Order: sequence, then C-alpha cells, then structure tokens
Amino acid sequence: MYIRVNPRDNVAIAVEPEGLTPGTTEAGGLVVRERIPQAHKIALRPIAAGEPILRYGEVIGYASRDILPGSWVREELVEMPAARPLDELPLATAVPAAPPPLDGYTFEGYANPDGSVGTRNLLGIGTTVQCVAPTVDYAVGRIRTELLPRFPNVDGAVAVTHSYGCGVAIDAPGAAIPIRTLRHIALHANLAADPLMVSLGCEKLQPARLFAASEPPTGQRPESLPILDASNVIRLQDERGFSEMVAAILRAAEKRLERLNRRRRTTCPASDLVVGLQCGGSDAFSGVTANPAVGFAADLLVRAGATVLFSEITEVRDAVHLLTPRAATPDVARALIQEMRWYDEYLARGGADRSANTTPGNKRGGLANIVEKALGSVAKAGSTALCAVASHGEKVTSKGLVFAATPASDFICGTGQLASMNLHVFTTGEGSPYGLALVPVVKVSSRTALAEKWPDLIDLDAGRIATGQATIEEVGWELFRFILAAASGRQTWAEHWGLANAMAPFNPGPVT
Amino acid sequence: MYIRVNPRDNVAIAVEPEGLTPGTTEAGGLVVRERIPQAHKIALRPIAAGEPILRYGEVIGYASRDILPGSWVREELVEMPAARPLDELPLATAVPAAPPPLDGYTFEGYANPDGSVGTRNLLGIGTTVQCVAPTVDYAVGRIRTELLPRFPNVDGAVAVTHSYGCGVAIDAPGAAIPIRTLRHIALHANLAADPLMVSLGCEKLQPARLFAASEPPTGQRPESLPILDASNVIRLQDERGFSEMVAAILRAAEKRLERLNRRRRTTCPASDLVVGLQCGGSDAFSGVTANPAVGFAADLLVRAGATVLFSEITEVRDAVHLLTPRAATPDVARALIQEMRWYDEYLARGGADRSANTTPGNKRGGLANIVEKALGSVAKAGSTALCAVASHGEKVTSKGLVFAATPASDFICGTGQLASMNLHVFTTGEGSPYGLALVPVVKVSSRTALAEKWPDLIDLDAGRIATGQATIEEVGWELFRFILAAASGRQTWAEHWGLANAMAPFNPGPVT
Repeated sequence: MYIRVNPRDNVAIAVEPEGLTPGTTEAGGLVVRERIPQAHKIALRPIAAGEPILRYGEVIGYASRDILPGSWVREELVEMPAARPLDELPLATAVPAAPPPLDGYTFEGYANPDGSVGTRNLLGIGTTVQCVAPTVDYAVGRIRTELLPRFPNVDGAVAVTHSYGCGVAIDAPGAAIPIRTLRHIALHANLAADPLMVSLGCEKLQPARLFAASEPPTGQRPESLPILDASNVIRLQDERGFSEMVAAILRAAEKRLERLNRRRRTTCPASDLVVGLQCGGSDAFSGVTANPAVGFAADLLVRAGATVLFSEITEVRDAVHLLTPRAATPDVARALIQEMRWYDEYLARGGADRSANTTPGNKRGGLANIVEKALGSVAKAGSTALCAVASHGEKVTSKGLVFAATPASDFICGTGQLASMNLHVFTTGEGSPYGLALVPVVKVSSRTALAEKWPDLIDLDAGRIATGQATIEEVGWELFRFILAAASGRQTWAEHWGLANAMAPFNPGPVT
Repeated sequence: MYIRVNPRDNVAIAVEPEGLTPGTTEAGGLVVRERIPQAHKIALRPIAAGEPILRYGEVIGYASRDILPGSWVREELVEMPAARPLDELPLATAVPAAPPPLDGYTFEGYANPDGSVGTRNLLGIGTTVQCVAPTVDYAVGRIRTELLPRFPNVDGAVAVTHSYGCGVAIDAPGAAIPIRTLRHIALHANLAADPLMVSLGCEKLQPARLFAASEPPTGQRPESLPILDASNVIRLQDERGFSEMVAAILRAAEKRLERLNRRRRTTCPASDLVVGLQCGGSDAFSGVTANPAVGFAADLLVRAGATVLFSEITEVRDAVHLLTPRAATPDVARALIQEMRWYDEYLARGGADRSANTTPGNKRGGLANIVEKALGSVAKAGSTALCAVASHGEKVTSKGLVFAATPASDFICGTGQLASMNLHVFTTGEGSPYGLALVPVVKVSSRTALAEKWPDLIDLDAGRIATGQATIEEVGWELFRFILAAASGRQTWAEHWGLANAMAPFNPGPVT
C-alpha cells in the first residue's frame, strides 16, 4: 500500500511498517521492483534522468538517472533543486477567504492583568545570566520540597535558566533577538505575566536592559521600564553568601506563591489560546498524517479566533512560494520573505545553507532533502490566510495564523515560540521525548507504530490517517479538543514525566 | 592606600573598601582630588590629553583630556588603543629558562587505563543531543536516590547535557569544535575515561560521528572508532516507551556503578594534574592579587611537571605581545597568533570586536577596557615558557604551560577546558557562584571583602595580598597545596552545594 498526496505526483510513499515487497502488485497495477522501506518513495511512472520528481504536486528534485516504475526513489536519485529566488514571489495573490467562525469553544484558563491567559499556574524564577543558574536550580529544589506542598493551586516551580546573559557580544547585530526572547519568557502568561528574576549583578544583561521596552543604544538609559525592585529582582552579589542567596530566593518565592495560590481557572474563549506548532524527528509520513491533521486543527483554532504560530525557517524556505500568495496583505508577504532572506544570509555567513537541515533520521524516514521536508512541514499551517509575521523572539499580538520566525532546531524553536505561546503542539515521526517546562506540549505521532511503541509519550496518533482508520478531519478535531482539554489542565505525557528541555534562546551574534 | 604594579605606571588603584578620600595625602605626597572608589584608578602624575595611560607598565589607553594628579581616571578618560597588529609580534625571543623541578608533590587520584588520572570518581551519562536531556535528567534523579546509596565509593552521578547535537549546521566550518569538545568530555578522566552515552537515534550528531577520531567528510564512514555497543550507548528510539528508556539507562548505570565502586584512589605525582585556569567577574584587583597568586601556583605546577591551561581569547588578545616572546618555539608563538587571528575574524563576521568583552561589573570594578582586563588576566599564566597551544575543544596532551583556546565566557571556557582538565581554578572580584559538575572548582577571590561576604563560596582569599597581609608567593603556595588537596578529594564550596553550570560547548557555526 502506498500514499500519493497529489494527482500530479510521480512518486508515492510506502505505508506498511514492513515496506513494499518486490514482485507484489500495488494499486493501479504498479509492480514493486525492489524492497522499499516504510515511508520511502516508490516511482509511480518512468522518470527520465533530469526529469522533475513530484511530491505534494511540487518539485522535490530532479532524477539523477532514469528511474523505472516500481523502483525505490532513494535519496541519491533525487538531485536537490536550487533555492527558489526570493524576489519574484507572488504577494497576497490568493488570499483565502475568512473561514466561518467557530463559536462556543472555551477552555479553563488563568486570566492575567495584561490580557494574556495562562494554561498553567507556575512559579517561574527567571535568570539574567547563566552564572546564577545552579543557585536558582538549588533554590527551586528546596522550593519544591519545602514550600510547594503548602500551595496546592500552584502547578509547579520552574527555574527558567539559559546560557545567555554574559560572555556574549551584547551590542552586536542580532543581540536584540535573545534579549527580547528572554524578556517575553520572563513575562510569560503561565508565570502570571509577572517576572521574578535572579540576577548576578555584574552581567552584561542587566535586569533594566532585559526589561527595556526596546533595546536602548549602548550607554543610554532605556526609556520605558517596568518597576523592578527587591520584590521581583534578586541580585546575588548583594547577598552575604550562598545561604543568604538561597534564603532571599525562598522568601521572594513564598510571597509569590501566596499570590499564585489564590488564583483560579475561569472559562475563557478559545480565542485566548496562542498555540505554537512544531515538528521534530520528521519522516515522510509527517507531511501526510500528523502535519495535515495539525493544519486542520490550526484552521479550527483560527476559526475560533485563536492565534496559531508556525515557525522553523529552513522548513518553510522551500515552500515559501505556497505561503506568500496566502499572505493577507503584500506587506505580510514581504515580511515573510524578509525573514527567509535574513536567514539565508545568516547561514551563508556561517558557511552553510538550507541543506544543513535534514538529519540522518529524516533520511532514514524517507525524506530525501529539505525541499521534501519543508513541503510536509508547512502542512501544519493549514489553509487560512497568513495574518502576520513576527521576527525571532518577538511577542505575537495578532490573532489568526502567524509565522513566528525561529530556527528549525526543536529546542530553539520551542524557546522562541515561548515568547508568545501558551500551548505547544509537536509532531514527530522518528520520535522525540521532548518537553517544555512552561507550557503543555501535545505530542502527535505521524505513524501508528510510534504511538504503539511509545504509549507513555505520544498524546495523539495521527498515523491512523495513513491506514485509512481515521481522516485528517477526524484527527484534526480530536487534536482541537485535546488542545482545549490540555489548556484547561489535562496533563500531557511530557508533563506527567516532568520532561522539560532547557531554554535555548536563538543568538545569531558571537560569544566573547 | 593605593597599589602601583609597575614603576612606569602613571596610575594606581585604590585599595580600601571605602576608596580614597578627597583631600587626604597618599604615598609620595599625592593629594587625592576626588572620591575614588575601591579598585578604581588614581592619576599619580599629570597626564596630558593624548598621553598614554600606563598600568602593568603597558599602555591601557590614551587620556581623552588633561588629567591632574590625584584625579579619578574614569573609564571615559581612557581611550582604548587599537588592537595590536598580529603580523609583527616577536616569536620565541625571550623564552624563559626551565624552572627548577619541584619534586615530591603528589595527590590521591583515580588512575585510568588511558593514562589520564581522575580527581573524582563520577558516573557520567553523556548525551549526543539535547532532545534526550530531560530523559537523562529524570534517570539520573532516580539513579541518585535508588542506586547511588549502594555504591559509597562513587562520588556522584551526572547528566552531561548540552544544547548541541541537532538543529545545527553539522558540516559547517567550525562544527568540529563542539563535536570534539563533547567527545573529549564524554571520555573525561573523572568519568573513568569510559563513555556511557544516551543517543536519540535520528540526531545529526550520531554516536559514531561523535567518537570518530577525526571528523570524516560527510557520508564517509569514520576510520577509527571506539567500540560502541549497548553497554555504552543507549538509543532511545530503540526502546519501547519512556519507562523502558529509563529502565535501560538504569540497567547500564548499575553495571557501570559496580565497576566504579571498586576503584580506589592511589598516590599519583602532581604531574598527573591538568589544571584549567579562568577568571570571571573580574575587577581591577584581579590582576594584582588573585591572578598573580594563581600565576605563582601555575609556575609551581609546571615545576612539578603538571599541565596548566590558560584560555579566554579576548582576555589574551591585548596581552599577546607579552606571550609570543615566551613561546617555547616560533611555531608555538605562531599557533597562539593564529588563534587570535581566527577569533578576530569570528568576531568581525558577527559584527563585533574584542571590545565586546568587559561587562558592567568589570567597569564597576575599575577595569576601563579590555586592554586593562587582559593585562590582569594573563597574570594567571605565571612566568614559565608557553609550551603548546591547543585549539578550541582539543585535548591537551603536553605538559607545562599551555594556551587552550576558548571564548572568555565563563561557562563556555569551563566547558572547553573540560576537554582536558581534571581540576579548575576560578578567580573572581565581583563574585560568581560558578561551578562545574565534572571537576572541583577552586574559587579564589581578588578582594578580602568578597571572601568575607561569601564565606560559603570562596575557597581562598587572595585579597590579603592587596593589604600586605600575605605575599603573592604565600598565597600561591597556599593555592598549590589547596589544589593538591582538592584533587585528592577535599570538597570545594561549589561541590559542597552541588553547584554546576550547564555545559556550553563553543559552536561558531550557525544553527538550522
């Protein structure tokens, strides 16, 4: 059994776990010429050397030699096309009509004074610099055992540590990216939008700089600051020794826990959701099962008035021509193109290009190159108009479908989306025990075999789509309902085990 | 009271915590013209606009206007000199004679089959990629509570996690740096030089690639591999769910713990030490108290046949002319220059230069710029010949004084030195509660006030040198003896509290 995505395609992918068997006859009388592993491509027609190889109705490469029908279209038979030029793309030429509103869907969330809504009620202790991380980890360990049991309405205590803040070129081009990422994470909806920070004292990323509304030129005083005092910034160099540092953090935490413990969930419209989408450990099924189901759920979220973020620039770059026509305005399309261009240049400065994406696992999973991967990846973006583009680490304030620029690296993408999102959806084919401390991560498998193998990690199996047991629409609705439940407090598997990848803010600048 | 380092100097630094008081008369009849904070500079002579400002007998800048004797030589009065050209430096022109050997000093260490010697007996679980980090953290939590109590001769269990391994341009120029750093850390002397690794399965940094003797060109099989099998690599995608992943890690850990628990310390010559030196949160005292004392101890270690690493490129760059003459051979000098040049170019690619170093804390601590900071920083290198230069993340095999190239960022430098060192010395003026999981970190304060304020973090106070209570030689000997004791098992304060900064391998390449 194979899956062809588009009638134009001259390749399809093998469905069964054991792959396709030589000599057997498949749909349309196609005779399988050789063993073809699951998720790998079979040629449906003769493809002459130099001819386009089509999947998703798009060119994923050119045949490096003649390929007979029924053959395995291996990675080495697919010559990757050059990157599409960015200066001739259609701008907002096929803007999808606004879909019918989807009313009446709600979740139980924590409303914050700034208008954001939390899906969890967490004590988060942020850090301005990695130097303080072990001290904060130590304090959070004590908070969990000594304080948290007295505050049953608080979902947990989190040390929000990272490796930025000093030893970096903090005035270099691009330094605004990690700084604003960390600022927005410190103000996260699931931390009551109220920062509690630990600073060392001598670091480059001073608290006042972190919370400046915009990056001030060096040496100038930032114009707009939130009120920062001892109640929300603990400066370790002010304390008399380690025990006093820990005591100061515990005192501040206890006060904060008293406030957090009085909070209650209230019924909020689904439009208060900001859902970040990501794929990791993708295979050739990702683009036909998990990602389209996520795309369907994304459409439902948009119809319900929510914000949906898709990201992962190198997994959008080769599908950008499918997205610029969908941009709500030419300016939105241009902003998307600008993010692609900036990243092309960033990679080139480092001696790399988009082909640095795709992993050994992607290839084992049947993805020949980044073009094929990207075409499957953008299925997560559903079918609605692209309403806005946010640059790396910017806080998204628009509703609807938004491109939030991030690298494709799972943990860097997740960290970047945390600047805005209150819930995360992660699709995987090869499987990743990924998680984030600040938001529920809903894990969707592209293959049933993975869901069966990892029953205590995968929240939803989209592999049923490949075998015809469920439709994209059905799994999309299941996911939409799961998102509302998870936002309301239902634990995901990642939360059950406490799996949380470290923050990894994108820093395009050099270290010193 | 003030300290002048070199008779040529036209500035000196204020010693007392309360600084210098206007109207008071200091040594040599110098009348203080204004309040000068501790560690900040006072003009000893009239300095005309444009005239060099001299400290350590070297030009740290040029006066931006006329400066009267007794004035505070503030940062804005010191114009930073241009970076010294790298193509006219003296090469091995003043090689110090070999110092008299220092025999009979030993420590109690763990001898490894590869010839390295551990200062601790740790179970370390390495990772090829950040995706697996939360799972390893979870497993290590269970190892600590369920297994470690049965193995009293094992000093601890460590999850060696990091943010490299996937989502990176793994074939880009410079990718060899993080890969070899992680390889050498996996083989660390304090982990019995025997890797136990957790891999996801689909990541770019496959275990076979991590342990290849040299980076093979893409797609080629590495030529030389250690034996990697289920006994030392656990691949999570092979396991049936999270519980099985954790069980597999625990099984491997238990077997390893049985072996580790049979190990005993034996008497080893001091020449088996590989001591990494670093400063962090430096002030103007660092270069006259802590760093010279460390330099004296470095000389003792070299005389005892040990290896001493100094690093932090941007804190060496402006003192490189003092080091190239000391290189043992012109080739060693050229290798040092090459590391400086490479980093100049790396910073320039990112739109930065050496002036990105120095922090708000450095400036508050009296350091006007990176030139002044570097001149104080290299005091750690003592007075012996520079025997070798290792590039980023390379394993140092030479004895004697070695420049091991790393960025100056504390945690990146520490991670880079972990490729080679079995003990770390960290000097600080402003104070940092820094630590590393794999080696003892001996913390030396540049000011007595800091040692008194942080009695439960600072292991040794070099501030006594400033007040004349101890000489550089005395504190150097104390530190040398402390190093031998710490190497033999004496806990440092960072170990007492379990403070361990996250691994941060230097990755000059782009992320994808």
